[in-house]
Amino acid sequence: MLIVGELINSSRKAIKEAIDAEDAEAIKKIARDQAECGADYIDVNAGTYVGKEDQYMKWLVSTVQSAVEIPCCIDSPDPKVVEAAMELHKGTPMLNSISLEKERWDALLPVVAGSDIKVIALCMSDSGMPESKDDRLSIASDLINSLVKNNVPVENIYVDPLVQPISTNDSYGMEFMNAVGAIMTEFPGVHTICGLSNISYGLPERKLLNQAFMVMAICKGLDSAIINPLDKRMMANVYAAETLAGRDEFCGNYLTAYREEKLVL
Amino acid sequence: MLIVGELINSSRKAIKEAIDAEDAEAIKKIARDQAECGADYIDVNAGTYVGKEDQYMKWLVSTVQSAVEIPCCIDSPDPKVVEAAMELHKGTPMLNSISLEKERWDALLPVVAGSDIKVIALCMSDSGMPESKDDRLSIASDLINSLVKNNVPVENIYVDPLVQPISTNDSYGMEFMNAVGAIMTEFPGVHTICGLSNISYGLPERKLLNQAFMVMAICKGLDSAIINPLDKRMMANVYAAETLAGRDEFCGNYLTAYREEKLVL
Repeated sequence: MLIVGELINSSRKAIKEAIDAEDAEAIKKIARDQAECGADYIDVNAGTYVGKEDQYMKWLVSTVQSAVEIPCCIDSPDPKVVEAAMELHKGTPMLNSISLEKERWDALLPVVAGSDIKVIALCMSDSGMPESKDDRLSIASDLINSLVKNNVPVENIYVDPLVQPISTNDSYGMEFMNAVGAIMTEFPGVHTICGLSNISYGLPERKLLNQAFMVMAICKGLDSAIINPLDKRMMANVYAAETLAGRDEFCGNYLTAYREEKLVL
Repeated sequence: MLIVGELINSSRKAIKEAIDAEDAEAIKKIARDQAECGADYIDVNAGTYVGKEDQYMKWLVSTVQSAVEIPCCIDSPDPKVVEAAMELHKGTPMLNSISLEKERWDALLPVVAGSDIKVIALCMSDSGMPESKDDRLSIASDLINSLVKNNVPVENIYVDPLVQPISTNDSYGMEFMNAVGAIMTEFPGVHTICGLSNISYGLPERKLLNQAFMVMAICKGLDSAIINPLDKRMMANVYAAETLAGRDEFCGNYLTAYREEKLVL
């Protein structure tokens, strides 16, 4: 399971305060904590700083990279911000995210075409948010085929089928799950990824729903996630689900996690 | 989700002690607690009393039925015990379980043929335990077709695909999951059911694995389970999984469970 740590996002109060105070140590600590808890990439988002996003993004990337060895996931739809971050970034980052929306596609394609960047491909188009499995599969097919045609290896594509709240439509959970299954089956080598919190929007005990949703998605083939790696219960569920899904030889990772006291129920 | 409460089993110390002391109140309390926590059937098993199983089974059935309105699930492979319990039972019980093992099949078929008893059909044959999805589907097909031919309505059949420990083979989780999916797709109207604890045999933090396994199985279509309904975390995961799987209109059961403080994380 590839884990993108989601915490360094300027929409979160603690991050905004750290940025405003130029408190590099606070940012570094959150980067280190996420890496220690199992993150493979550190998502970096300065989207709330309209007009100054590039400046703060650069500060965040260099601050994070001074603290941890793992790469960043550059989280912005603005090609200028993305390019500024990429220029500065040591090693190969991930991009969060390209989509089929024409403006975003045209702006970000040049950044990823022919590169070895890992790219999150969000199942969103100018016709709006996908509702059904088939909507998602159709957008995913266009995204994957177009990216591959532009020399992005299929192994570097992380399709995000887009989670929508179960409180707005009873079928949104299974439409997502079946999309994950179909994408993983029809495009060998491709990855699927998602953020979780939308699924439980508007409902109580959101962590319970988010955890169960993650377990189901892993059963369907999801192999990456944008989550808070400091959430021990979520991570414990990821370890358990990977073992049950047959992706953990001799239960080795599960037993290691147990010995490291990571299997918090 | 149909819940069979598993607690009244003479292999459990508290139950053995209650039976030995003829402590009807203790048995009644466990029956009532399970019914209040959401059980639809109370499993009753006196299998450790070799030679006296029928006598203790009868006492357990009448004791349970004096305490709760919901029916029993008669848990024995012995036709004499089953028949003794059935004679006594008010209303329509469930039988746990028939299988494709010739001796068991021949002995229990007369009990269920042409009846309105709900019957658990365990995917076990004289060639041993099934390993793959295809093994399970093949035994399930034989069981379902033969039961239907003997006038058991498909809606009264609860196929148990047989959970095997993930610690003995990495693939046992997904072979089970894919069997559930295939059985539910190929035999419309049939049900699937299972006990959980085998999946985590030999591993630490078994509750974590059992809960994640239940969530995955619900995603694959499992619609019944033999569990401890007093395990609040397990039940909370069942509520969450059913909602995410699109089986809870307008999240109504989930919200009711929340108001009743049943969504323990």
